[in-house]
Amino acid sequence: MNREVNIALIGQGFMGRAHSNAYRQVKHFFDIPVDLRLKVICGRNRPGLETMARAWGWEQISTDWRSVVERPDVDLVDVSTPNALHAPIAIAAARAGKMVLCEKPLATSVAEATSMVEAARGAPNGVWFNYRRIPAVAFSRRLIDEGRVGEVFHYRAVYLQEWGNDASRPPSWKLERAHAGSGVLGDLLSHLVDTALYLNGPIREVSGLMHTFAPRRDIDDATLLLARFANGSVGSFEATRYAVGRRNCNAYQIHGSRGMLAFNLEDMNYLELADATEPRNLQGPRRMMVTGPDQPYSNNFWRPGHSIGYEHTFIATLADFLLAPESFRPNFADALEVERVLEAVAQSARERRAVSPAGLPL
Amino acid sequence: MNREVNIALIGQGFMGRAHSNAYRQVKHFFDIPVDLRLKVICGRNRPGLETMARAWGWEQISTDWRSVVERPDVDLVDVSTPNALHAPIAIAAARAGKMVLCEKPLATSVAEATSMVEAARGAPNGVWFNYRRIPAVAFSRRLIDEGRVGEVFHYRAVYLQEWGNDASRPPSWKLERAHAGSGVLGDLLSHLVDTALYLNGPIREVSGLMHTFAPRRDIDDATLLLARFANGSVGSFEATRYAVGRRNCNAYQIHGSRGMLAFNLEDMNYLELADATEPRNLQGPRRMMVTGPDQPYSNNFWRPGHSIGYEHTFIATLADFLLAPESFRPNFADALEVERVLEAVAQSARERRAVSPAGLPL
Amino acid sequence: MNREVNIALIGQGFMGRAHSNAYRQVKHFFDIPVDLRLKVICGRNRPGLETMARAWGWEQISTDWRSVVERPDVDLVDVSTPNALHAPIAIAAARAGKMVLCEKPLATSVAEATSMVEAARGAPNGVWFNYRRIPAVAFSRRLIDEGRVGEVFHYRAVYLQEWGNDASRPPSWKLERAHAGSGVLGDLLSHLVDTALYLNGPIREVSGLMHTFAPRRDIDDATLLLARFANGSVGSFEATRYAVGRRNCNAYQIHGSRGMLAFNLEDMNYLELADATEPRNLQGPRRMMVTGPDQPYSNNFWRPGHSIGYEHTFIATLADFLLAPESFRPNFADALEVERVLEAVAQSARERRAVSPAGLPL
Amino acid sequence: MNREVNIALIGQGFMGRAHSNAYRQVKHFFDIPVDLRLKVICGRNRPGLETMARAWGWEQISTDWRSVVERPDVDLVDVSTPNALHAPIAIAAARAGKMVLCEKPLATSVAEATSMVEAARGAPNGVWFNYRRIPAVAFSRRLIDEGRVGEVFHYRAVYLQEWGNDASRPPSWKLERAHAGSGVLGDLLSHLVDTALYLNGPIREVSGLMHTFAPRRDIDDATLLLARFANGSVGSFEATRYAVGRRNCNAYQIHGSRGMLAFNLEDMNYLELADATEPRNLQGPRRMMVTGPDQPYSNNFWRPGHSIGYEHTFIATLADFLLAPESFRPNFADALEVERVLEAVAQSARERRAVSPAGLPL
Repeated sequence: MNREVNIALIGQGFMGRAHSNAYRQVKHFFDIPVDLRLKVICGRNRPGLETMARAWGWEQISTDWRSVVERPDVDLVDVSTPNALHAPIAIAAARAGKMVLCEKPLATSVAEATSMVEAARGAPNGVWFNYRRIPAVAFSRRLIDEGRVGEVFHYRAVYLQEWGNDASRPPSWKLERAHAGSGVLGDLLSHLVDTALYLNGPIREVSGLMHTFAPRRDIDDATLLLARFANGSVGSFEATRYAVGRRNCNAYQIHGSRGMLAFNLEDMNYLELADATEPRNLQGPRRMMVTGPDQPYSNNFWRPGHSIGYEHTFIATLADFLLAPESFRPNFADALEVERVLEAVAQSARERRAVSPAGLPL
Repeated sequence: MNREVNIALIGQGFMGRAHSNAYRQVKHFFDIPVDLRLKVICGRNRPGLETMARAWGWEQISTDWRSVVERPDVDLVDVSTPNALHAPIAIAAARAGKMVLCEKPLATSVAEATSMVEAARGAPNGVWFNYRRIPAVAFSRRLIDEGRVGEVFHYRAVYLQEWGNDASRPPSWKLERAHAGSGVLGDLLSHLVDTALYLNGPIREVSGLMHTFAPRRDIDDATLLLARFANGSVGSFEATRYAVGRRNCNAYQIHGSRGMLAFNLEDMNYLELADATEPRNLQGPRRMMVTGPDQPYSNNFWRPGHSIGYEHTFIATLADFLLAPESFRPNFADALEVERVLEAVAQSARERRAVSPAGLPL
Repeated sequence: MNREVNIALIGQGFMGRAHSNAYRQVKHFFDIPVDLRLKVICGRNRPGLETMARAWGWEQISTDWRSVVERPDVDLVDVSTPNALHAPIAIAAARAGKMVLCEKPLATSVAEATSMVEAARGAPNGVWFNYRRIPAVAFSRRLIDEGRVGEVFHYRAVYLQEWGNDASRPPSWKLERAHAGSGVLGDLLSHLVDTALYLNGPIREVSGLMHTFAPRRDIDDATLLLARFANGSVGSFEATRYAVGRRNCNAYQIHGSRGMLAFNLEDMNYLELADATEPRNLQGPRRMMVTGPDQPYSNNFWRPGHSIGYEHTFIATLADFLLAPESFRPNFADALEVERVLEAVAQSARERRAVSPAGLPL
Repeated sequence: MNREVNIALIGQGFMGRAHSNAYRQVKHFFDIPVDLRLKVICGRNRPGLETMARAWGWEQISTDWRSVVERPDVDLVDVSTPNALHAPIAIAAARAGKMVLCEKPLATSVAEATSMVEAARGAPNGVWFNYRRIPAVAFSRRLIDEGRVGEVFHYRAVYLQEWGNDASRPPSWKLERAHAGSGVLGDLLSHLVDTALYLNGPIREVSGLMHTFAPRRDIDDATLLLARFANGSVGSFEATRYAVGRRNCNAYQIHGSRGMLAFNLEDMNYLELADATEPRNLQGPRRMMVTGPDQPYSNNFWRPGHSIGYEHTFIATLADFLLAPESFRPNFADALEVERVLEAVAQSARERRAVSPAGLPL
């Protein structure tokens, strides 16, 4: 008889749906030694909560997160609200002794994120930087560990969306500083930075540029930066919602002394590898389908040659958390490192000069 | 209070898993006016059945399909066994008045398929030609209907896999005539032909070539054909398990007087369209991401720019069946047309001459 | 002091221009031990000849090929006329003891081609199947010889053009049987077959399908065939001018026990290679730029990473001929083998049954 | 009878060869109202000069550029030496009243470039920024002028090479400050900046980062920058010789309110266009082959569907210069603007702060 883990999901938007799906699916694909109970979904819109509860089988609904996070029959609190609420909810949940899973970006400032790390010191915690669990991204990490990239020279990442240019789009909390904290900095660049820290290690200097295209908007529509990594490589990052022609291009290329890796979320079942140790007349980037065999998560989902999609990144993230909640990465401390880079980028853009994250000397 | 539909799944292999997932997921993404109950899973391997039941929540297990298909508490029988068992099971289920969903290929001969159509005359029936429900394929159908291809000149389709060349692979019923009926003819070419009939209409003549690469194997490892369609276009088809370098390349290109469509299952979230009515200096095939908006199933799954995977084709197939079981296509009669083409291909290959499906005069 | 080779070019169309360029350029890129003299260009349209002579430096013009091919001050006759004139001119030139370079297809029938082989028995001769000299194609040949493809299972080739669908296009001799002999059979399929014989060896059986889309046209707009090669592999070929959406897609894929090669003229500086001997989790088709180092012709043109274009295929063909006229391949005898396959295809299409080239028993 | 233009080429390296080819080929493809005479090639290596003269037909050789640029029988001086010699030679030639064509980068400093502009005030002058004449690049300019990109949001450009990582490569003047002035700044970034100014207008602020990977090297191996353009768009640039896996990837993407353009030199016959004004469900980047019809230079080279290569960019550059030497762009003044940006980048990288080209206030 498995132990039961009771879930409280705070948030009823797109992420609430993606997480609900993960809770429903995780045991179909992973051998998880606990049973999940979808205890309560919490948000502000009661009819929406009822629809969500009906669709995904949440047992109860609530509009009061403060009481939910303290319920004795809740074991895990999943924070999937707009960004500005991450800190208060996650801190309250952690103080109540709950396991906490928080959507990205962890916080809207380094100060908030630091408090969250403090509060969660005793409780298992994790951040939904789901793209780390894309098989191709996890496989990148393995190939780097095996030395197939060698000494890294260049790390280049972009997150290109185009919906900023779509006048017909309905309003969103993502476009207001009060709710989102920032624009693409927290929404898109946080993903790029988390993946970069995961694959290429710490960043020690950034030069940022932030821009708002829309009149009267108080958040950044585009944020770019150049970086120096601690390992000696140089980096370039760009996040924008005005890259007309690109739907969801979250892509990186890593060039090292022994090879190149290239990935794009728009073709998420693939990873490109160039092997610079082969005879020169046989070199060329190869397009590997990362659906197995012997690749991350390839025993969990379908067979080699059968694509997975967006939702599987959440399923794999949840599985890894449930399999080892105490040692799960990225945790709040990892996400704090992301926040430090983001804050340095914002400062650099404001001051038009290079800045080191967390006050390190230049 | 919804009506309940009780499911009996016959088959516990890879398809059994894909179908189980569909039953679990369909109501998360589609507004289906019935409740599904995963009543019983049936197969020959009892430990395997127990594992499947535990993983996917089947209430009961059984090793006797004959009794299962007659149970009064079963409403829908899903036939996901090796091909040779499709006919007896589906016929028994249909005669017992059940709704029947059958895996492809419907049968191992035209004779079998004809009996199945007869038997199912009163009962809702459908065939899991799941690739019709890939958004890009359904979108192809819509674009053709809108006239964006025009008069069709060429229809070209391949289904290229490579596992035939992998000596380390375990034995499979798919490689034995007694269980599979044929090799790639039924396994892969049936998909190509179903999609072709769906997108381009009836075929009136074929010239086939079948080949077995492996010694002592009694089924076809590769089947190719040239075709003439009733609409005046000419076609080319190839199905093989020896296309080293291609994992799961189920692809078609359609060239017409006004444009081209091109699709590849290995990049299943995309469809290529060339518009020949544009100024010539602006022409070129465009790569459309078929994840919405205003594209098939784009309101059901995630948001524009967010990929779906292999499993979603089964979910969408099931949804369409449950929403309108009586009028669902492809049904057994549609799959019989596929069998007629396959049988003509086999005869043509044997006799080394052009043959018309179903005895039509040349 | 180099020996001089005096050239007579018969033909003033697109091929005349491509060949003129080759004569002008060959010594800039290859170390050729003769000097070329562009002695005379011959055709029917005097003003056009004058323009050509002025542009490319032909010393003289003529409208009488019969006298030209017998001139004592001509060493090499280049036959670049419409197809129906290839045989009479090449035979006359060969009988006059000239070296002969003939455009493809060599002839409009096996009978003609056989006479040409007979006539040229004493004289160096070659055929402008220029695509053999694309670096990526020649590199394919080398990789096959090195065993990187292994035992071949599948050979697949298409030549897809779209101009048949362009109503605004001016009339062309290529669309009339009297001048062209056939449609895409001779124009496009001949290229595919020459490359296939070069890369994959003799063909022993074909099943053909020919179709004419345009009303009142007496040549084939599309020709397709299935084939069995002497090495045990199976083949598929398609040539058409009605593949709307494809400009000049002359492409092949070769699948063998150890790997895959894939090429497309539309990306002529690249060759795709999949290596099936690598660990399975690292496999994937790699895109090799074939501009050097250590690749065919990479020391002749520019540097690695610098593209060459269409015209360079003629330059390299000419260079190889001039460097070793006696042993140049493909010669007339090679092109006769192509004609035998083409004639079998036409017969097969007519009789709707499989046919062996050159009357070999089925 | 055409006027004769006598050419003196100073330089005998790779560029000398590319230019020699252009002089030989330009009248084969363009209707140029002058006759070119390859009068003299000048360099330091006499045996090399003799080889060049023999291969390309230069009438004379010389090892003294000072006398060559003043010869009365020279009309046009082509400066193709290492960068540090551009200024002295071009200035001497201009003062002697010659037409001057200079390789890029124009100079090694703004000061030098300014002197060159001064000196050339009376004489027709041009710079071999040959990539402006790639048909796809010139077509980009036309599409922008037609409004197909709209208000520009993002301009992104990279020039990625990998040979810096190749230890077997012979020494080169390009790696020494004394001869090259800088590393990738002048060699690669100058191309990106020239193209950017051509397509997207002036740059008003840059933040640069320069890095040297190789020990004891005195030039930059990689230079990156972020930029703000005068038109309100933001830009990102990266030039490096350490992008292992990329041979010659000179690429840009431009995102605007109405569409996207994307180009890569490694696929130089193509241009990608996304049209954001189409119905959203039909949007997707299209890959246009830019070989005609009705595209830049498509009447000059071969037919639609037939690729051109690297060398054609020089031929088209030369043609445009010879057709209108007085109004040719880019001229020295244009290249001075490039130098101003490059110098600002270097200053910004040194001072770790944003800098405006040419001392404009931030």
